[in-house]
Amino acid sequence: MSEFIGIGVGPGDPELLTLKAVKALQQLDILIVPYGRLKGESEALKIVEGYLKKDIHILPKHFPMVQDEAELSPAIETISLEIKGYIEQGHRVGFITIGDPMLYSTYIYLLKYLLYQVPVKTLPGIASYSAIASGLNRPLAEGNTPLFIYPCNGKIEAIEKVVLDHDSIVLMKVYKQFDAIIKMLRTHDLMPFSLIVSNYGKENQVIYHPDDLFTHEKISYFTTIIINKGWQL
Amino acid sequence: MSEFIGIGVGPGDPELLTLKAVKALQQLDILIVPYGRLKGESEALKIVEGYLKKDIHILPKHFPMVQDEAELSPAIETISLEIKGYIEQGHRVGFITIGDPMLYSTYIYLLKYLLYQVPVKTLPGIASYSAIASGLNRPLAEGNTPLFIYPCNGKIEAIEKVVLDHDSIVLMKVYKQFDAIIKMLRTHDLMPFSLIVSNYGKENQVIYHPDDLFTHEKISYFTTIIINKGWQL
Repeated sequence: MSEFIGIGVGPGDPELLTLKAVKALQQLDILIVPYGRLKGESEALKIVEGYLKKDIHILPKHFPMVQDEAELSPAIETISLEIKGYIEQGHRVGFITIGDPMLYSTYIYLLKYLLYQVPVKTLPGIASYSAIASGLNRPLAEGNTPLFIYPCNGKIEAIEKVVLDHDSIVLMKVYKQFDAIIKMLRTHDLMPFSLIVSNYGKENQVIYHPDDLFTHEKISYFTTIIINKGWQL
Repeated sequence: MSEFIGIGVGPGDPELLTLKAVKALQQLDILIVPYGRLKGESEALKIVEGYLKKDIHILPKHFPMVQDEAELSPAIETISLEIKGYIEQGHRVGFITIGDPMLYSTYIYLLKYLLYQVPVKTLPGIASYSAIASGLNRPLAEGNTPLFIYPCNGKIEAIEKVVLDHDSIVLMKVYKQFDAIIKMLRTHDLMPFSLIVSNYGKENQVIYHPDDLFTHEKISYFTTIIINKGWQL
């Protein structure tokens, strides 16, 4: 059946794909691959390329890396119309997204355009924080403790308040203010309760030790910090 | 290699297992299956039973359904010592857990006992809220909005504050105060922004409509509410 399928591909290790995702990938006629930069490799494509059928059409598409939905809108609209055309021609069209498609993904904007226009199916993926916590044998949250998942786009004061107000926290998009965040965690003696990981499950994975000097001028975009104050490293 | 493997099996649909989980399941000598009640079926076992080797030893274990870690402790210690024994005899021992092992799972208590005593590997699983959001084509959180994952064990006033203070919320363990939570969501006109789902991906799945009367005396233990104030149903 012709439909649009958004597929969460997990954080990097192809074995973290679900059986459902692999089955869907193998049945696609067209795969839309998002690129954040005009030139560059697609991390998402690397994860799935072993599971695609040979004659699949791979369509790389550029999505501007901007926060503002209005700014993204023209690109989303153009790509959505193209996808709609392929669906109406009877194709099965997939879109791959790192991690989980329903959490901070560009896929959400495509979904808004396409949901009531063509058949849409979305398949969940393992979120980076979940893979890191399991991979490093460290709980995200236990018992009655809430888990606060926080994208660090705002001011460091706001990030500090979140870190002080909660016991179990996932800090996402930390690359913009990485040095300030590490300094803040040190000030509050939270480094022994923090996991800091870049590119989890990929060839260039880095797990930072709390005692590292963190003179990292360019920290990877794919860096996550997990804090669990109830768990000593 | 002899080791203890904690496996997140996702919320119910066996196809939401990861490739890594399936591979691990197929190599197990012994599988520890947790039961919340002394008699009853194991939801986790139903998910994985198609992927086990024929001569695997399945060991059902009762874990008391209590919140208090101290109360759970004797049961955890006994089972941990038994697991340690099997590992020392050279067996590969698995433990299955619904959803993700690092989020509100009994597995975390076993991990605390066993981590520095035997080799431990943990495999992440799709969390129920992630599967529900994708399955119903509804984002969990977008852009700069934090996601607050909240286990509803406390008072309704505390749950109400969480719901009013945040835009994207997952309410877990809602079964104890289900009617009060629904009444509170209605009071704040939040029903059109709420997904209410029981037993997602299982035979007895129920997706509640916002206009339902909710005269459900016994709501399932596996019920989740996802609220996204930026998304109209």
